[in-house]
Amino acid sequence: VNISFFTEFSFIDFIKKNAPTLEGTEIVGIGDDCAVLPYNNTHQLIVTTDSLVENVHFLKNKVSAFDIGYKSIAVNLSDIAAMGGNPLAIFLSLSYPANLKKQWLEEFMQGVFSLNIPLMGGDTTSSESDIFISVTALGTIKKGKAKLRSMGKNGDILCTTGYLGASGLGLEKLLENKKSIFINDHLRPRAHLEEGHFLARFKDVHAMMDISDGLASDLKHICRQSNLSASIDIDKLPIPKGMRGKKSPISYALESGEDYCLLLSMSSHSFKKISSSFEKKFGRPLYPIGTLLEGKGEIEYFKDNNKQDIQFYGYEHFKK
Amino acid sequence: VNISFFTEFSFIDFIKKNAPTLEGTEIVGIGDDCAVLPYNNTHQLIVTTDSLVENVHFLKNKVSAFDIGYKSIAVNLSDIAAMGGNPLAIFLSLSYPANLKKQWLEEFMQGVFSLNIPLMGGDTTSSESDIFISVTALGTIKKGKAKLRSMGKNGDILCTTGYLGASGLGLEKLLENKKSIFINDHLRPRAHLEEGHFLARFKDVHAMMDISDGLASDLKHICRQSNLSASIDIDKLPIPKGMRGKKSPISYALESGEDYCLLLSMSSHSFKKISSSFEKKFGRPLYPIGTLLEGKGEIEYFKDNNKQDIQFYGYEHFKK
Repeated sequence: VNISFFTEFSFIDFIKKNAPTLEGTEIVGIGDDCAVLPYNNTHQLIVTTDSLVENVHFLKNKVSAFDIGYKSIAVNLSDIAAMGGNPLAIFLSLSYPANLKKQWLEEFMQGVFSLNIPLMGGDTTSSESDIFISVTALGTIKKGKAKLRSMGKNGDILCTTGYLGASGLGLEKLLENKKSIFINDHLRPRAHLEEGHFLARFKDVHAMMDISDGLASDLKHICRQSNLSASIDIDKLPIPKGMRGKKSPISYALESGEDYCLLLSMSSHSFKKISSSFEKKFGRPLYPIGTLLEGKGEIEYFKDNNKQDIQFYGYEHFKK
Repeated sequence: VNISFFTEFSFIDFIKKNAPTLEGTEIVGIGDDCAVLPYNNTHQLIVTTDSLVENVHFLKNKVSAFDIGYKSIAVNLSDIAAMGGNPLAIFLSLSYPANLKKQWLEEFMQGVFSLNIPLMGGDTTSSESDIFISVTALGTIKKGKAKLRSMGKNGDILCTTGYLGASGLGLEKLLENKKSIFINDHLRPRAHLEEGHFLARFKDVHAMMDISDGLASDLKHICRQSNLSASIDIDKLPIPKGMRGKKSPISYALESGEDYCLLLSMSSHSFKKISSSFEKKFGRPLYPIGTLLEGKGEIEYFKDNNKQDIQFYGYEHFKK
């Protein structure tokens, strides 16, 4: 669930204030990666919706139909991962112009199928010109085990389950028609489902979300919903080697988004144990990048222990 | 779930053949009004997705934002009604151009909220020009009680829970800028949730679906999925009084669609009892319109017991 604002007023605040909602303990509505709803005696249902729009999220002449199909599912699975859940089924809504080729549609669907999540329904309609893709993913999580953005605690270590910035540089190279090993990071993001599922078992893992809009933007959600501030150590950002583009590697890491690894907070005293256990399972450690602190939602950036007088912004969708 | 074909090849057949699906008794995937999934000890989860696209399903200068919001939810609730289920929550995906007015968005959301179904999540993104709305509705139904399109039986009476054709005439009048009492039928379709829920209790009610594309088109689904043919008695079609437009009232009733009442089949020996019980509750009878017969999916139309040599087609979305 990623409600952005495309007008000056805060559309999501209006929706949150006025929408009829389900009430109850353990129910989560708008504002987290997934909604959490009742399911059965042992599990809760988690639900997320994410859209991809032609000329906003992708350019048809730059990205293959297969990759678009793949990504439309992967970004939803990433929201399931962010709760620590397991995917159950997907539903696909697809609108496309009448002149779209059969081959494009088949390759798109092969991309959708390639993640091997049951496709249980959907809707296809025509559109005037652009392709609209909306996917709803259902998943399950053990009762009370969902990791919410609001669960961060004062003093928590912030860490990620993967590198940052590769997708943003890959997009830049793609748009410049250049070759780069980072393009694949942009086209084929991997939802960190196993990582999320693994981390959800630890009581000392608190807040968790996926990095879709860029760390600088996404971390604000954890801060605001946990009523905390954060400090980030720029030198510790896990940035892949060999990143060379128009911007600094740090800028890609903080602002570009679409990395789709997980951002989480955990008790500092448990970091060593959990990271070592994580590394045993996944062959790489968790990357500590900062700390949650008392405060009112501010994020401060440090380099060599010096506060940086800069402001980073989140991902802006591609604009023609 | 209403997968249509907008290219010459059968896109849905390709999807059905290749999609990974959940397997199991009582699980229903693509091809019915809702998917049916496991839920808890007593109930199953039903899920449907339906989209509305600007300039395909609605014209922004002809229909109010409130009405579009209302309808985007109502058409999904109609799919829940068609299974005999109860709505649980909705998820809204909305893409719109940056220049869309705040007032339009607020009125649209008021229309969404007006049906009083919990809105538990969604996604808003920008689009280049057109508004794209996709809604996923979740509901529940008692285990094994979902009424499927495939459940029709040879000899069943076909009937509807409401009038046919009003919405189609209303759309015509709307596009002609004329006043008509039928315009409201087009703008504010009522999902027959209570009717569906009531009818689902009867074992002798077999197949059920909602009428969205027009009886002539929708009935084909019941015939094909039940491996039966059907005969329709044109004189018995429940057509509102006072319908005057460019086409014959029968043509609106069979072809126009968007009536969103229910089409169902039931054992002929139970019709009198169930219809009388239905009338006691809802103040109007069920309208018998024909019969399911042995055959290979053909629909034959009769008038005064004479077979009509005509072919009716389903609804085509508005084209500029």
